[in-house]
Amino acid sequence: MSMWTYQKKLQYPVKIKKTNPKLAQIIASQYGGPDGEIGASLRYLSQRFAMPHAELKGLLTDIGTEELGHLEMVGAIIYQLTRGMSVEEIEKAGFDKYFVDHTAGIYPASASGVPFTAAYLQSKGDPITDLHEDLAAEQKARTTYDNILRFVDDPDVADPIKFLREREVVHYQRFGEGLRLATDRLNAKNFYAFNPAFDKQIK
Amino acid sequence: MSMWTYQKKLQYPVKIKKTNPKLAQIIASQYGGPDGEIGASLRYLSQRFAMPHAELKGLLTDIGTEELGHLEMVGAIIYQLTRGMSVEEIEKAGFDKYFVDHTAGIYPASASGVPFTAAYLQSKGDPITDLHEDLAAEQKARTTYDNILRFVDDPDVADPIKFLREREVVHYQRFGEGLRLATDRLNAKNFYAFNPAFDKQIK
Amino acid sequence: MSMWTYQKKLQYPVKIKKTNPKLAQIIASQYGGPDGEIGASLRYLSQRFAMPHAELKGLLTDIGTEELGHLEMVGAIIYQLTRGMSVEEIEKAGFDKYFVDHTAGIYPASASGVPFTAAYLQSKGDPITDLHEDLAAEQKARTTYDNILRFVDDPDVADPIKFLREREVVHYQRFGEGLRLATDRLNAKNFYAFNPAFDKQIK
Amino acid sequence: MSMWTYQKKLQYPVKIKKTNPKLAQIIASQYGGPDGEIGASLRYLSQRFAMPHAELKGLLTDIGTEELGHLEMVGAIIYQLTRGMSVEEIEKAGFDKYFVDHTAGIYPASASGVPFTAAYLQSKGDPITDLHEDLAAEQKARTTYDNILRFVDDPDVADPIKFLREREVVHYQRFGEGLRLATDRLNAKNFYAFNPAFDKQIK
Amino acid sequence: MSMWTYQKKLQYPVKIKKTNPKLAQIIASQYGGPDGEIGASLRYLSQRFAMPHAELKGLLTDIGTEELGHLEMVGAIIYQLTRGMSVEEIEKAGFDKYFVDHTAGIYPASASGVPFTAAYLQSKGDPITDLHEDLAAEQKARTTYDNILRFVDDPDVADPIKFLREREVVHYQRFGEGLRLATDRLNAKNFYAFNPAFDKQIK
Amino acid sequence: MSMWTYQKKLQYPVKIKKTNPKLAQIIASQYGGPDGEIGASLRYLSQRFAMPHAELKGLLTDIGTEELGHLEMVGAIIYQLTRGMSVEEIEKAGFDKYFVDHTAGIYPASASGVPFTAAYLQSKGDPITDLHEDLAAEQKARTTYDNILRFVDDPDVADPIKFLREREVVHYQRFGEGLRLATDRLNAKNFYAFNPAFDKQIK
Repeated sequence: MSMWTYQKKLQYPVKIKKTNPKLAQIIASQYGGPDGEIGASLRYLSQRFAMPHAELKGLLTDIGTEELGHLEMVGAIIYQLTRGMSVEEIEKAGFDKYFVDHTAGIYPASASGVPFTAAYLQSKGDPITDLHEDLAAEQKARTTYDNILRFVDDPDVADPIKFLREREVVHYQRFGEGLRLATDRLNAKNFYAFNPAFDKQIK
Repeated sequence: MSMWTYQKKLQYPVKIKKTNPKLAQIIASQYGGPDGEIGASLRYLSQRFAMPHAELKGLLTDIGTEELGHLEMVGAIIYQLTRGMSVEEIEKAGFDKYFVDHTAGIYPASASGVPFTAAYLQSKGDPITDLHEDLAAEQKARTTYDNILRFVDDPDVADPIKFLREREVVHYQRFGEGLRLATDRLNAKNFYAFNPAFDKQIK
Repeated sequence: MSMWTYQKKLQYPVKIKKTNPKLAQIIASQYGGPDGEIGASLRYLSQRFAMPHAELKGLLTDIGTEELGHLEMVGAIIYQLTRGMSVEEIEKAGFDKYFVDHTAGIYPASASGVPFTAAYLQSKGDPITDLHEDLAAEQKARTTYDNILRFVDDPDVADPIKFLREREVVHYQRFGEGLRLATDRLNAKNFYAFNPAFDKQIK
Repeated sequence: MSMWTYQKKLQYPVKIKKTNPKLAQIIASQYGGPDGEIGASLRYLSQRFAMPHAELKGLLTDIGTEELGHLEMVGAIIYQLTRGMSVEEIEKAGFDKYFVDHTAGIYPASASGVPFTAAYLQSKGDPITDLHEDLAAEQKARTTYDNILRFVDDPDVADPIKFLREREVVHYQRFGEGLRLATDRLNAKNFYAFNPAFDKQIK
Repeated sequence: MSMWTYQKKLQYPVKIKKTNPKLAQIIASQYGGPDGEIGASLRYLSQRFAMPHAELKGLLTDIGTEELGHLEMVGAIIYQLTRGMSVEEIEKAGFDKYFVDHTAGIYPASASGVPFTAAYLQSKGDPITDLHEDLAAEQKARTTYDNILRFVDDPDVADPIKFLREREVVHYQRFGEGLRLATDRLNAKNFYAFNPAFDKQIK
Repeated sequence: MSMWTYQKKLQYPVKIKKTNPKLAQIIASQYGGPDGEIGASLRYLSQRFAMPHAELKGLLTDIGTEELGHLEMVGAIIYQLTRGMSVEEIEKAGFDKYFVDHTAGIYPASASGVPFTAAYLQSKGDPITDLHEDLAAEQKARTTYDNILRFVDDPDVADPIKFLREREVVHYQRFGEGLRLATDRLNAKNFYAFNPAFDKQIK
């Protein structure tokens, strides 16, 4: 038995009819770029080990797991946007620099082609700090989706991207509630004085 | 509804009683190191988009999903090995270089502290090539677990590590069968002449 | 005439009498590590170009400039902690891996020896997002100083580190005020609908 | 006396008459990209130190040395494709992003401009594992040459690229023979139980 | 009181009237690329701690501080070249790969989009070596400015770039004088025998 | 026929009798670290394509080829220093962080475990600049060998390291002569005005 189980069903349907490798390249940043879904899921799924409160651990597990599903959606979008493209389309779209190394395979890199690095994220072992990291991460992802939407005409692409953007806003709100919960649990006058994930004074 | 669902149960139980940050640091490489579980799951879950045959797509999904569960196990091992350690233990174990940046949080890096990078893996958009990449990946993970076991005395740690090592051997065998299936599907005389994930001649 | 002028005077005095290369290595992360002063100053001094409001541009310039001074302080601490150390002390402290490549020179790397990378920071060209990034950055720096202090006995080191930590808390508060100012300027119902640093609707 | 001697003669002649910086940029990935010739030669020339059997050590030396010659060929192709290009040709080809940092010099980077990193390769100190790594590497290089050939019209370029591609297929076969030899030498029932490069039980 | 103070005045005025995101992208390499101004200032401001002679320490401080001002100038150039650009201009200029991750914000990366890394620079803790590093750095920056100028028609851009290029030549000359001073201070027959920044024999 | 031929003979004999993994780890930086032999050979062998004068092209080929031989020597030193080490010796030497990922195999990384990156080197396509880069590179390698020698007691190790250090000094002198030749060839008054590797005015 494994801890995650996979269901062959996207959280939101992706059915793109028109090939567009130029757009695929931009959207790739939400796969393996600085504020993309790989970074998101790794951030939350890593932070949760040291998160001291059960509700917050659960929050990180829930959102981290959902981001895995978003990663699948983004991958499906890129895949469908590059399906069946011709060599001429590849060259015209400037997709050749990606293609030479990965053909039409999905690889975790930014729009510029920089391989994903965990340097984009932090897991600091301090609940207050990690939740701030998470709030910032959701805003960064939201901005990236905003930027992607500026280049999208095709509603087949725009709709799932809007769905993904909307989810980042929801996650932002949930992390905001999580931060409130975490600060409430901390004895007010000790606010910056110790770390409930490492120090022993609090449960 | 999300595509992965999480069950609060490890594939193999991890119940470590004795803190050991020195060992934790070594095992960290199977979390975010060159041949660790993050790389494994990203590799398989990324490759599957362009994989042309349903059986092989399914194989990559299954193993990629299982590796997510293994990532959770490795994280749990590291977390339990560093739980409740004192500053003295941290210094003695040489864990201070990690601790200063991540406290006792889990962060995706190698034993040496290099943040995980997708440069460790490839998704080449060519089924024969990707399956060779996967066979090599499983052997590399197997060797890492072999090396970890040389440093482990505690059966609470050795048992789940042995389980994880054993799974890599099983995955290796399954990818071997996958490669046979993929080559059978290719018209023999065209073996190296085209790529069924990109070229149109074959289904 | 240049835009920054240098005054030969630290913001807070650093006068360390006792060599301690082991501690120097840990503190190095606040020079070139993931949440260190190089990243801080680069983040703020880069973000300010696209920041739309004069007060916020000024805030980023002020704090970014102050972080340059903190970088100098951290460099001075590391330099003084490694001054005059013997080869025996280097080996005993595990400082040899750093020493072979940089002798006793100051080089921008984390405690683990990973060269500084701008992947640690983001400049997103969106004021709301950048200010969240900055709030998170200050919390991450604060936690790093907390962690450093766990290893420090020498008051000659502890005092300037405490001063630096305290400044991060002040910066955090100032960025909090900045975020309030930025959200107030945004038309409430458009909150997430456009980016005042790029879109033209607002001044 | 040095261990390698250089002969001013390419393994296969490179005589390109027509400048083509756009194509040069794609081919650059076989110089310093993820599956290029620098990675190939470093992989084999590094692995051979710990390879336990003389035949396999010799195999790695032979192929590693040949890849150095291929690196020279790829460099010559890129050099000849960018020789005498005008500023207009540079801009039209999108070569300006490379040119600004390296003029028309040859620099080890991928088509996307990412500097070569050894994270692309592994030297695991385990003969079975290293040979799997090598088989995968040859398939990845083969796919890259396949992809390059999709963009090449000029026979002056296509011919040496086809030669290089053919050599990867030959190396793949030789590593396959090497793997057979290595597994034969291992006592069957111990197959996964120890590492002849580190453990002492076998010669 | 902080060690650097900022004056709201560029060393050389930057007043660009015509948007040009294509050119902005090339110039970006002097912000965060391999031989850009971030690397320059970090190199000199880091090396100066271990530099043994007061004149040379002062030289590094002066030039390092001036480079911070150049960084500001380069940032201002990029900012003004991308100010008010439309989505159509972004796409036509190939600026979309940068834009998706940073909107029109300034981020420390090379023209190809690779985040700045301190691997571009060295601080070796040896005065003779560090000054050679600095001479090379100034030549590399000079060549980059030469290359940028090949793409610039607009005198609003060319003038500040020429100013920056000229300063690199001046810095080169000053480091040449610094090297002469450093070698004169070394006892001739010990030239390569010890390191005045680490060994104790010389003051 | 290949362009390099390998002779099974080191430029200087390496016969180390005493295992010393702690020292091996330090010396590793001259294999794959910032100023090591991989960087050296890649730098010279890459720069030579665009180097305009036959003597200088030949110089780069000669020294680049010799550095390949030095890489082999450094690899042999590391291999012999780690041959036959026990698990206890590995742990005591702090070699476990390397061992977990590479067993006793030779892998291109720095002493701190950072994989080799071409960001350490530059190939600028400008002869004056490239020769300055090379002079700096030789000084940096010389300092690294100086630093290694501070940790070496065993004459079996010290002798080949001294030989390698001496060769860097010779290369430095030869690059100095090369720079004189290159500047003599340039029309004096045009010294900084054009680049003979790219511009057409000079042969």
